[in-house]
Amino acid sequence: MNAPIRVAVTGAAGNIGYSLLWRLASGDCFGADQPVILQLLEITPAMDRLKGVIMELVDSAFPLVHDIIGSDDANVAFKDCDAIFLVGSRPRTADMSRGDLVRANGPIFTGQGNAIAAVAKKTVKVITVGNPCNTNALIAMANAKGVPARQFTAMTRLDQNRAHGQLSDKAGVPVAQVDNVVIWGNHGPTMYPDVSWATVKGEAVRGNFDEAWLNGEFQDTVADRGKAIIVARGASSAASAASSAVDHMRDWWQGSNGRIVSMAVPSEGWYGVPKGLVFSFPCRCEGGDYEVITDLQLDAAAKAKVQENIDALLAEKEAVADLL
Amino acid sequence: MNAPIRVAVTGAAGNIGYSLLWRLASGDCFGADQPVILQLLEITPAMDRLKGVIMELVDSAFPLVHDIIGSDDANVAFKDCDAIFLVGSRPRTADMSRGDLVRANGPIFTGQGNAIAAVAKKTVKVITVGNPCNTNALIAMANAKGVPARQFTAMTRLDQNRAHGQLSDKAGVPVAQVDNVVIWGNHGPTMYPDVSWATVKGEAVRGNFDEAWLNGEFQDTVADRGKAIIVARGASSAASAASSAVDHMRDWWQGSNGRIVSMAVPSEGWYGVPKGLVFSFPCRCEGGDYEVITDLQLDAAAKAKVQENIDALLAEKEAVADLL
Repeated sequence: MNAPIRVAVTGAAGNIGYSLLWRLASGDCFGADQPVILQLLEITPAMDRLKGVIMELVDSAFPLVHDIIGSDDANVAFKDCDAIFLVGSRPRTADMSRGDLVRANGPIFTGQGNAIAAVAKKTVKVITVGNPCNTNALIAMANAKGVPARQFTAMTRLDQNRAHGQLSDKAGVPVAQVDNVVIWGNHGPTMYPDVSWATVKGEAVRGNFDEAWLNGEFQDTVADRGKAIIVARGASSAASAASSAVDHMRDWWQGSNGRIVSMAVPSEGWYGVPKGLVFSFPCRCEGGDYEVITDLQLDAAAKAKVQENIDALLAEKEAVADLL
Repeated sequence: MNAPIRVAVTGAAGNIGYSLLWRLASGDCFGADQPVILQLLEITPAMDRLKGVIMELVDSAFPLVHDIIGSDDANVAFKDCDAIFLVGSRPRTADMSRGDLVRANGPIFTGQGNAIAAVAKKTVKVITVGNPCNTNALIAMANAKGVPARQFTAMTRLDQNRAHGQLSDKAGVPVAQVDNVVIWGNHGPTMYPDVSWATVKGEAVRGNFDEAWLNGEFQDTVADRGKAIIVARGASSAASAASSAVDHMRDWWQGSNGRIVSMAVPSEGWYGVPKGLVFSFPCRCEGGDYEVITDLQLDAAAKAKVQENIDALLAEKEAVADLL
């Protein structure tokens, strides 16, 4: 059995947090031989609810959970952390544009970036789930002086999983037989699920699926999935978002076994994406690190979509320039 | 990789179901090399919500999930099942006594017992989570002619986990170092967490913990935990109940590695409990089966508590005698 690691979750009493914590506690993310100390952050008005969540975690008697700490102070919750899930964010209300949302979330992530720099381990792995997650990750990264930028990531794994799920459904095969859809860009309206390297049962998707479906309904279903879930379930995606966050961090921590996984990470100029933008790229993970696959040949559609995502993320960056 | 097994969950779109399904899909219950086909039952008015839950399961792209079926017909949901989680039940409203609750749930479990007999595998393992779970299990068992009675169980693992959690908190040690609290009887007000064989770090709890605490606050905290969770979280226990259901079924399926676990199972007359009552006993699990530990020496307090639980369960049985 390894020594325990410290894992922080923000927005821990929210709906995604409630799904995520049990998956972290069970060993699904960091492995069956890796004890964890859970360090949970909430806003002050949610501390009673967080207390109830912690009671239920205690009641679940997880052998891998060595301690649980709840706090409304990021400097407590992030102390000595090995991994951080930035889940909490200001939700979008009916009267807010995406620009308003970007601005409203800025101050949360400047403060959390500062706290990460002040108290977390310098090797901490950060995944940002709270939306707008790419730009929230950018803000946290910019405010975490002394922590390497590449340790700040944002989640597009939910988009990848949704794309794999749609191909699995269409082909009528288990999703384990679907590989290598690549998500480019921003977890937002411009996000592009690219099937150019995708396979089902080892065979290329291109040429074996109807092109009109791939370029139309498939794209639309993946893009609009969040809204469709709300309509059907009467609540926004929670367990699937948490599950995708587990997948992202698990692969980063334990390796992706050669599979391509999509992660939004700070660009180093790959594929024409300006340095520093937090952008979803195809990655492979090994030895506790990720590597962006930098030599794929993009078709015209993908190039146009990458540019569209660059433009969108530059606009979001511009809106929070004073926080960077 | 094994051939897929069929796992049914009732009340699948409810709050416990929403926590449970992701744990079943991830491999936490049946193992990392055991694919599953999830067969989800809901009442007709909840079918839209169930559709949303299934969409999110698809979006989670679990490699072990080979198919997902949703239905409002138990004869579809239980077809060829290897394991069934009876989670759905009529909740207790403010105007209902426990007797009312027992009666209100009866017809649900007669129908589900019939369906299990008609379409599930004869080797199916059934755990009843929906309350009053002991008597609901009794009703299902009585109506499932041809399926061996011992395959019908009810969940007291949540009580065991709560007891282990309290001892862990009190001793300030990880819960992995707490063993062998025994839950006797009914998952209800008479339930008795017995620490006579319990250990912390391998040392007996009796003699190393304050007796007044063990006989007072400890008992009360475990017994009243459900209400305390509702007060703190603003919602009833869901993830901890789901987690305990996973623990119960996992140990039954994969073995308890020599540990004592509490399961409510049909009595064969052990400890003076009338044959056929679904009663929580100390068990060990091995080779896909459970064995009740029948030779423990009960102290006077435990004997009195066992009798109190027998009386309570006989009264519940009497209230549904026409359904058995």
